[in-house]
Amino acid sequence: MPVLLSPPDAAALLPVPGVRLGVTEAAIRKLNRRDLTLIELAPGARVAGVFTQNRFCAAPVQVCRANLTTGGVRALVINTGVANAGTGEPGLAAAQATCAAVAHVLGIEANQVLPFSTGVILEPLPVDKLVAGLPAARDALKADGWFDACHGIMTTDTVPKAASRQVSIGGKTVTLTGISKGAGMIKPNMATMLGFLATDADVAQPVLDALLKEVADLSFNSITVDGDTSTNDSFILIATGQAGNPTIADTGSVDYAAFRAAVLDLSVWLAQAIVRDGEGATKFITLQIEGGKDRDECRKVGYAIGHSPLVKTAFFASDPNLGRILAAIGYAGIDDLDVSQIRVWLGSAGEEVLVAEKGGRAESYREEAGSRVMKEAEITVRVDLARGAAMATLWSCDFSYDYVKINADYRS
Amino acid sequence: MPVLLSPPDAAALLPVPGVRLGVTEAAIRKLNRRDLTLIELAPGARVAGVFTQNRFCAAPVQVCRANLTTGGVRALVINTGVANAGTGEPGLAAAQATCAAVAHVLGIEANQVLPFSTGVILEPLPVDKLVAGLPAARDALKADGWFDACHGIMTTDTVPKAASRQVSIGGKTVTLTGISKGAGMIKPNMATMLGFLATDADVAQPVLDALLKEVADLSFNSITVDGDTSTNDSFILIATGQAGNPTIADTGSVDYAAFRAAVLDLSVWLAQAIVRDGEGATKFITLQIEGGKDRDECRKVGYAIGHSPLVKTAFFASDPNLGRILAAIGYAGIDDLDVSQIRVWLGSAGEEVLVAEKGGRAESYREEAGSRVMKEAEITVRVDLARGAAMATLWSCDFSYDYVKINADYRS
Repeated sequence: MPVLLSPPDAAALLPVPGVRLGVTEAAIRKLNRRDLTLIELAPGARVAGVFTQNRFCAAPVQVCRANLTTGGVRALVINTGVANAGTGEPGLAAAQATCAAVAHVLGIEANQVLPFSTGVILEPLPVDKLVAGLPAARDALKADGWFDACHGIMTTDTVPKAASRQVSIGGKTVTLTGISKGAGMIKPNMATMLGFLATDADVAQPVLDALLKEVADLSFNSITVDGDTSTNDSFILIATGQAGNPTIADTGSVDYAAFRAAVLDLSVWLAQAIVRDGEGATKFITLQIEGGKDRDECRKVGYAIGHSPLVKTAFFASDPNLGRILAAIGYAGIDDLDVSQIRVWLGSAGEEVLVAEKGGRAESYREEAGSRVMKEAEITVRVDLARGAAMATLWSCDFSYDYVKINADYRS
Repeated sequence: MPVLLSPPDAAALLPVPGVRLGVTEAAIRKLNRRDLTLIELAPGARVAGVFTQNRFCAAPVQVCRANLTTGGVRALVINTGVANAGTGEPGLAAAQATCAAVAHVLGIEANQVLPFSTGVILEPLPVDKLVAGLPAARDALKADGWFDACHGIMTTDTVPKAASRQVSIGGKTVTLTGISKGAGMIKPNMATMLGFLATDADVAQPVLDALLKEVADLSFNSITVDGDTSTNDSFILIATGQAGNPTIADTGSVDYAAFRAAVLDLSVWLAQAIVRDGEGATKFITLQIEGGKDRDECRKVGYAIGHSPLVKTAFFASDPNLGRILAAIGYAGIDDLDVSQIRVWLGSAGEEVLVAEKGGRAESYREEAGSRVMKEAEITVRVDLARGAAMATLWSCDFSYDYVKINADYRS
């Protein structure tokens, strides 16, 4: 059961002029499953991408990186079922064959195609099935295909993830629509995570590139489900330029500020949706780490808490076993941490409870208050390191029987 | 169910001249539980200790560190139930009061006592109950008290852990007996882990100190159950000097080599026993990482595999979902790793199967072979990084429903 996350309303997903999407069943790994999604971009669209830091990065990621540098991206193709990762040279050839086949059905060049795969690692991609499915995906292309597409990219997700925003820029209404998928292998530096966000705004390429990096850091790179960084993570930002707004070319402009806010808002929503639908998740945890010397040490502390199986199982049990949080802070890797200065709060639904200070349990703390907060579905852990002015916010979830069940059964 | 680990035979635990042990029920947290263990050392015993690197280190760890520097340790006192960690100044006072009380019942000085606590973090230690139990623990002191002691230090352990070794040094038979306890919060740099190893060998203090550090690195600091570093980890090496051997004072000597081998053998056994009895463990995994530029990067790769919830649940399911192992290697943090050079084997019971090479699945690999190995209770993952000559061996276990159950229910 995802934590406070509902499927999108098809009517609420706004078409983005310049983008058409088509989905089909290609039987890549299983029958009767929408597993192949094609996204066609009008000429002139600008595209930026960030990818997994995993050294075993998948073949499609390597092809994406190369094709992004040539510019002129006209299509994205996404298959589920097989990740085409850990597949060596044959995997690279399969990703390239995919691009060539997409180019063929759309009448474009192979290096104008970005391929994405998600699913089981170490198994060969059945390119023949994928290629055979492309004409049907092309025939399905439509401007209001976002609802189909958010279903087409799902793997172990239980809920499709998609949302739209609109913002006025230079007197023009700009639309943003995005989709994402999780739901395991979710960790710093992306996840088994695909995110696609398209807008009709007109944005200069350098601005788009810089914005994507900044936003990825604050959204998809600030979540964790299980601490595993996937081989296939990709987050793509597309700007078709058809809204008619004055080109956003200056990061100091008012237009940029408005656009940045909308992209960030939607990206955070899409990233949080992955955590809310994390494998087996029953709680959505916000980790707000303040008072660090720098952002990096705040993230270290947040991830130590967010990855700790002991903390995660305590959240699952709604048990205010707060010592496990202190222990995680203590081993986060800050060598000169003065634990006597740290304060820790648990919060939910307007209530915030000071649980630890002066190296131990806060005098004012009462177990009833901790228990009350821990029973909520959304909980914030706030930590003040009292060392500086930096902060970071991360999002995580709990660790349940179902996580084990899902991951012990995934391939069967 | 622990993995191939049986309770010790009381008769097989050899007394160590100069060491007496007594256990009692002090109702520290629960009634009818042996939760207080006293170890008395004869005058002249030398003691070395290594402790958790967690910045939230427990009050007793702080007192141990201080009292070890004064020398002349005559007693160790261990309570379960409450860890006396995250307890601030009152916790420190409680640990000191414990030492004073032990000193009183044994007629020694308070700074000759090393206190150890394990259990729930962030709750006050009920010193009055502990102190009230000390006379009974003292009255129970006996040379063959190891069997009782290995029961007395258990928390979520399902099997007590104790073993003995004997080795001839300088014509004298030297005895070593050790006990340990886990079983959650087990990770690099110690665990919720207590280990006590005593010998009657005569060993110079500097040699004892250096040996302990080296052995801890190769044993207790090479295991992981869940990646959580506890606040209370301690590993203590005691040498009473009563065996009559020539003092081991030279690390280049034959005597040292024999002694080191025996200490290492017993320490590795005690550390592995903690993993075999890891919370919910059904498989014992050896991670043998070779071909690294240095030992540190080999350990990074081993811990990435050993900590990955996805890898651990695949082991639980006996599913050769080997892509998860490759993914973990890929995100272990070696930036210039060339994945096309890496080879990975799965091994068990005399069989070793090459599963990955050239950046993908090995051509010779057959799923039947992988499945056969994964069904075994003891499995070795061997990784050749092909970058150098360094290696490291770590031990881990799988991740089961019972891990979640145990840790969601621990306090209830």
